[in-house]
Amino acid sequence: MALIVHKYGGTSMGSTERIRNVARRVAKWARAGHQMIVVPSAMSGETNRLLGLAKELSPSLASQAFHRELDALAATGEQASSALLAIALQAEGMPAVSYAGWQVTIRTNSAYTKARIESIDDQRVKADLDAGRVVIITGFQGVDETGNVTTLGRGGSDTSAVAIAAAMKAKECLIYTDVDGVYTTDPRVVPEARRLATVSFEEMLEMASLGSKVLQIRSVEFAGKYKVPLRVLSSFTPWDIDINEEAKSGTLISFEEDENMEQAVVSGIAFNRDEAKISVLGVPDTPGIAYQILGAVADANIEVDMIIQNVSHEGKTDFSFTVHRNDFARSMDLLKAKVGPALGAKEIIGDAKICKVSIVGIGMRSHVGVASNMFRSLSEEGINIQMISTSEIKTSVVIDEKYMELAVRALHKTFDLDQPSS
Amino acid sequence: MALIVHKYGGTSMGSTERIRNVARRVAKWARAGHQMIVVPSAMSGETNRLLGLAKELSPSLASQAFHRELDALAATGEQASSALLAIALQAEGMPAVSYAGWQVTIRTNSAYTKARIESIDDQRVKADLDAGRVVIITGFQGVDETGNVTTLGRGGSDTSAVAIAAAMKAKECLIYTDVDGVYTTDPRVVPEARRLATVSFEEMLEMASLGSKVLQIRSVEFAGKYKVPLRVLSSFTPWDIDINEEAKSGTLISFEEDENMEQAVVSGIAFNRDEAKISVLGVPDTPGIAYQILGAVADANIEVDMIIQNVSHEGKTDFSFTVHRNDFARSMDLLKAKVGPALGAKEIIGDAKICKVSIVGIGMRSHVGVASNMFRSLSEEGINIQMISTSEIKTSVVIDEKYMELAVRALHKTFDLDQPSS
Repeated sequence: MALIVHKYGGTSMGSTERIRNVARRVAKWARAGHQMIVVPSAMSGETNRLLGLAKELSPSLASQAFHRELDALAATGEQASSALLAIALQAEGMPAVSYAGWQVTIRTNSAYTKARIESIDDQRVKADLDAGRVVIITGFQGVDETGNVTTLGRGGSDTSAVAIAAAMKAKECLIYTDVDGVYTTDPRVVPEARRLATVSFEEMLEMASLGSKVLQIRSVEFAGKYKVPLRVLSSFTPWDIDINEEAKSGTLISFEEDENMEQAVVSGIAFNRDEAKISVLGVPDTPGIAYQILGAVADANIEVDMIIQNVSHEGKTDFSFTVHRNDFARSMDLLKAKVGPALGAKEIIGDAKICKVSIVGIGMRSHVGVASNMFRSLSEEGINIQMISTSEIKTSVVIDEKYMELAVRALHKTFDLDQPSS
Repeated sequence: MALIVHKYGGTSMGSTERIRNVARRVAKWARAGHQMIVVPSAMSGETNRLLGLAKELSPSLASQAFHRELDALAATGEQASSALLAIALQAEGMPAVSYAGWQVTIRTNSAYTKARIESIDDQRVKADLDAGRVVIITGFQGVDETGNVTTLGRGGSDTSAVAIAAAMKAKECLIYTDVDGVYTTDPRVVPEARRLATVSFEEMLEMASLGSKVLQIRSVEFAGKYKVPLRVLSSFTPWDIDINEEAKSGTLISFEEDENMEQAVVSGIAFNRDEAKISVLGVPDTPGIAYQILGAVADANIEVDMIIQNVSHEGKTDFSFTVHRNDFARSMDLLKAKVGPALGAKEIIGDAKICKVSIVGIGMRSHVGVASNMFRSLSEEGINIQMISTSEIKTSVVIDEKYMELAVRALHKTFDLDQPSS
């Protein structure tokens, strides 16, 4: 008898009919002898409906007090869907109980709308599991030290599920979603994209952070930190499919390096066009210059992704980085008005019409020439590379956004991702 | 500077536009120098929507575990509306914070779907009030000793507001609703019905329990127990009406007997057709017979209202009582199958086509002949009285339901309720 965590996204919980199917699927797992914890998202559309009401009342607030209320408001969506799932399970004859984050307790810090889980108390949940009940725990939310409701931010239910699986020492955390696994790249861009049966934790981390929308990145970090085996699979298979078949479906995010030894050098191609690049040109190449630029950006609560500084000429250097497109205008204003003049920068230039394309693969560690293969492939398509950034298991380039699909398709072919890997 | 509690019903919270008006009204009171606590209901329709989803999933459950989930589900409606009101107040420039029942803490027993408040912790709320914040507390809900969310049952937000006003020693609890006060009877039945400027606590209690839908009876009991001055008034006046005028509008439920000395003998006519009557005929008139009949009914969780036992003949007596119409069939089955045979009853008869009409007035205490005036008035209209029950300040009769409106109109005229009382 193993302890298993299931997480269901908003689409899977989108109607009473779908909730009933989730209940039947969970009951099937419980009847097969597993102890079951289920983490549901809010019914699809519900979180947006609630936040829409808040926006009607207050288009412009941004205070801590306002974010506190937004969290209290948004958290009700998961509380309702959790209670509904408990009711659906009970209607299937399966004992079940639902808990909000504060009831478990799932303790977070007080960073409203993007809180981080600090601890999870397993006592109450354990007692229920031992009593034969399915335990449903609201995703997306927790409670801070002084008893305020917090939320983990969009997609936070994945993180909740993994954190709960880690705290409860679950055998596996199954993330049921509307895709049936992790692909070599987005099948909408490359029809030949293949589903990966397994992907390493490190690869998944790079792919999630680079824009594959399957899993929230923080949940992958959590899974990595606590070595929680994570499986992404479809909630749209019939609920009564054979449980052994279901248990092997989707993509397993693995922590066993050995398993991946024989895998392809590159596992996937990630991409996004959510970013914009900014260059601060001709600043003095003195110690602390990076901090003076990026510190000001961070103080304005703007997150920076790629950062590049090349060698200097005549005591001057150029400094480039990318930010989310939503923060582009604000970043440019900040740099032009304050940071640039203060540093005596020659020029501040920016471009929002870019995209980032990355190849990701744990095999890159032991294979040389992978990056140069990437650059060759892009050059053969006549695509100019604007920025390059590398890490142990990924290489990212920034290119003109109009070439995004072309680049992804070319790289997918170059690295033989359309061929089965085993 | 006084501490005031406002309670707003679901209709008053029914849209963002209405929530904004509530916020403006509350802000007006706060700016006039009052410390403000607000208890909102869920947005109108929301509780029904949530319970409707539950019903789709489970048409037939009735377990404790099921009721626990129903409460967790229903409580989200007030949590959302409370957060929205806090946001609306903040948008008006008024500092505000919302608390769910478990955050205050509002401690209840564990009787899911009809829990009773046991204690309210005033510490956190006091600190916020002292810091100049409007405090919004979810109506309708609390938390039991082991941290399960409970609800107080339909209309429970009134009870929450009064209990909070009592715990916080508020100067007055204002119940904003879609009627503008307590009337001598339902104006839909008697167009001449008048609004009462004040009504005594005892009268209100009798009127609430007899079917005047203005306030939940438990809230009146609470107000009586803790001597909380309670005012029922309309939330549909413009939010910016003069605060002194607003503070005197509606109906004040008073605890000062003196004020009522000059009032009319009868203050109002209450009525309902929610009940059915049952008679157990020809049972032996022995000690314990009432318990044997009503104990069995109570064990089946059926609430009994009027109970009448007349003098016996030849050692046999007849026993009549009324139950809610929804419990009528179940009560009849129970009595015919078990209780009647066990007691050797001659016959069990029942009638669901009845109504109860009551005259209520604190002046009845010191005036004789009020009941007989009532009976005369009904007899003049040719209405046969089936059951009579009296208390110190009310007299109720059961009559054929088809005469209800006629009886109410006749009694309203008989007791001069269409004339101003002062």
